[in-house]
Amino acid sequence: MEKNFESKLSESAKSMKASEIRELLKLTAQPEIISFAGGLPAAELFPIDNIKKTAEELIEKDGRRALQYSTTEGFNELRNVIIKQRLEPMGIKAGLENILITSGSQQALDYSSRIFVNPGDTIITESPSYLGALNAFKLADPNFVEIEMDDQGMKMDKLEEALKTEKNVKFIYTIPDFQNPSGVTMNLERRKKLIELANKYDVLVLEDCPYKELIFDGEPLPALKSMDTEGRVIHLGTFSKTFCPGLRIGWIVADPFITNKYTMLKQGSDLQSSSLDQLLTAKFMEDNILEEHIKKIVEVYKKRRDVMFAAIDKYFPKGIKYTKSEGGLFTWVEVKPELQSKEILEKALEKKVAFVPGDSFFPNGGKTNFFRMNYSCMSEEKIEEGIKLLGEVLDEYYK
Amino acid sequence: MEKNFESKLSESAKSMKASEIRELLKLTAQPEIISFAGGLPAAELFPIDNIKKTAEELIEKDGRRALQYSTTEGFNELRNVIIKQRLEPMGIKAGLENILITSGSQQALDYSSRIFVNPGDTIITESPSYLGALNAFKLADPNFVEIEMDDQGMKMDKLEEALKTEKNVKFIYTIPDFQNPSGVTMNLERRKKLIELANKYDVLVLEDCPYKELIFDGEPLPALKSMDTEGRVIHLGTFSKTFCPGLRIGWIVADPFITNKYTMLKQGSDLQSSSLDQLLTAKFMEDNILEEHIKKIVEVYKKRRDVMFAAIDKYFPKGIKYTKSEGGLFTWVEVKPELQSKEILEKALEKKVAFVPGDSFFPNGGKTNFFRMNYSCMSEEKIEEGIKLLGEVLDEYYK
Repeated sequence: MEKNFESKLSESAKSMKASEIRELLKLTAQPEIISFAGGLPAAELFPIDNIKKTAEELIEKDGRRALQYSTTEGFNELRNVIIKQRLEPMGIKAGLENILITSGSQQALDYSSRIFVNPGDTIITESPSYLGALNAFKLADPNFVEIEMDDQGMKMDKLEEALKTEKNVKFIYTIPDFQNPSGVTMNLERRKKLIELANKYDVLVLEDCPYKELIFDGEPLPALKSMDTEGRVIHLGTFSKTFCPGLRIGWIVADPFITNKYTMLKQGSDLQSSSLDQLLTAKFMEDNILEEHIKKIVEVYKKRRDVMFAAIDKYFPKGIKYTKSEGGLFTWVEVKPELQSKEILEKALEKKVAFVPGDSFFPNGGKTNFFRMNYSCMSEEKIEEGIKLLGEVLDEYYK
Repeated sequence: MEKNFESKLSESAKSMKASEIRELLKLTAQPEIISFAGGLPAAELFPIDNIKKTAEELIEKDGRRALQYSTTEGFNELRNVIIKQRLEPMGIKAGLENILITSGSQQALDYSSRIFVNPGDTIITESPSYLGALNAFKLADPNFVEIEMDDQGMKMDKLEEALKTEKNVKFIYTIPDFQNPSGVTMNLERRKKLIELANKYDVLVLEDCPYKELIFDGEPLPALKSMDTEGRVIHLGTFSKTFCPGLRIGWIVADPFITNKYTMLKQGSDLQSSSLDQLLTAKFMEDNILEEHIKKIVEVYKKRRDVMFAAIDKYFPKGIKYTKSEGGLFTWVEVKPELQSKEILEKALEKKVAFVPGDSFFPNGGKTNFFRMNYSCMSEEKIEEGIKLLGEVLDEYYK
């Protein structure tokens, strides 16, 4: 007998929707497609031999710990090496009491809304913003307030306007470096202003920082957390973009009171992240495998980006704008306001090319003439070929 | 400057508490303590050599998949081998559309309350029940209704009474086999009755099934999910007790509509469980490493249980009752009603012996004269010694 269980659902579950991107990625995963849709690191660059050797040694010498339950907070050796190798170079001061290991930063995003947001509370985001974060936040049924960006990041006058007028703002969510999806980096002056505004209006800042180390041009800007004078920045890190996302390891860095709340939530929600993934990741850092890998992928991704941007300049119709991203994985394309990027995608798929329509990156919807393109997972040849094909599709709209 | 962020918290986060057991386990983890407090499998029995070999082969042959993002649902090969090796032998019919891989069954417990429970909705539990489940459920702020048990499981007349009178019952949470903490198994007749009542009163059943395969005496009873005629049983499995909990792999088996809701929640909450843990676990099953391991641990745990029960009979004062568990990891001890198991623990710790006081296993509190003892992680010698010491402590209360 078929039963309908709809009526059993919680209010939150009734409104759950499958992520459009995840569904789209399934479609575009066919090998004959040239896909600029994903946000994946390049698997062909994974240092398989080193990973194999590290795994062997770890299981042989420390197998019982790597396979047994461990603490919710995460292994000390992992948290210590994150402090030393990832946080100190960013100017972030932290001790063990500030850090919790999470299962990727996606989990930290979900936890952030569970810990701070009652239904109807406000989350301020960049416009556009990372779809995965929006999907996580939506589970808490917030009010989204979007702040317009330009090529220097969130506009600070618009942010202040929102902070003045909006009630119950729980946090400002930002990806300051090589933002997903826009590719934009927030400049230094705005970083300072953002911290000043957060202090003035007494709100928290959620700094999502997955791409910072994938820098191609110029010098890195300071992390918001390094400029935080009141403990109100929650910094999220992950290895999913710099190393291997199949190992689900991320971290939060926050005021100890806040970190402790995240830890209690993690106790109830999944006890701990994979012991094996944690100890492997710690060893990859201790043995400098991660550092070497980042150097290698930055070199390769930079070339791929250069090829993509040169191809766009060559093959796309005049009048199309895109972000000259200086790092990270994405560029963001703006076409004429009357165009529908979903329709363009349909035409592109006929030519076996894919990207992600921009619509769902706007938490309150309504903007249809943008799309996101990734340059990290395709070879230079495929990128050139795909952009050329996409140019042919776009030409039809710009005749 | 120190800030107080208490006022920023969501209602749910304000009431979060650290798990007493997790905190206690930290205390009792000192090597000189004979601890019956944990719920861990015996790490000295992990098949380290086989695991090492499997990991080497997997990373060499299939490293890119094992280290890259994968689907939220979990790898098909893992779900298929779970169907074949774990579910079919239990009489549970399932296809891929019924199964989602979770990060241990703790995650499935958290998801269950997120998907079904609005604040104030009722969850029916056995009394006592698994503390980790209660902690997960509490995040959704439910009303707990406890059903008394005897040595055959939940009393069905009490269950029917509750189903008749309670409003908004979302699900009945049960661990039918070798329950944590009581060690009790629900008999066949009551299993049938439970399904009948769930159908009659239109409620869901959450069957938590981590211990079923750790059976020492008699024949296994059918899983509730195998007796489910209306798709209303949600079955939770895990390798945390039968294999290695450091690999965070569990699964839910449910009606496709329900499984789909869990999957959407997982997309937002952590994208996917560890790719490496998933593919390793699939290979452990395909290569029969898991089956061999279960045979070995059942043999060892059975002996340890026998030693513990014989020692209890020998050293504990007369009048103390305990469950003659036929499988699983625990027994449950009942002392005189006027005694406080927390106080007994303090005395026991002076003699370097630990157990878990029973209080927090009762969702609504109030029962102080029970404690839980684990027999899987200590050697037979240590068990004999620890029970003897504990007998000396208890003698003081029974003079």
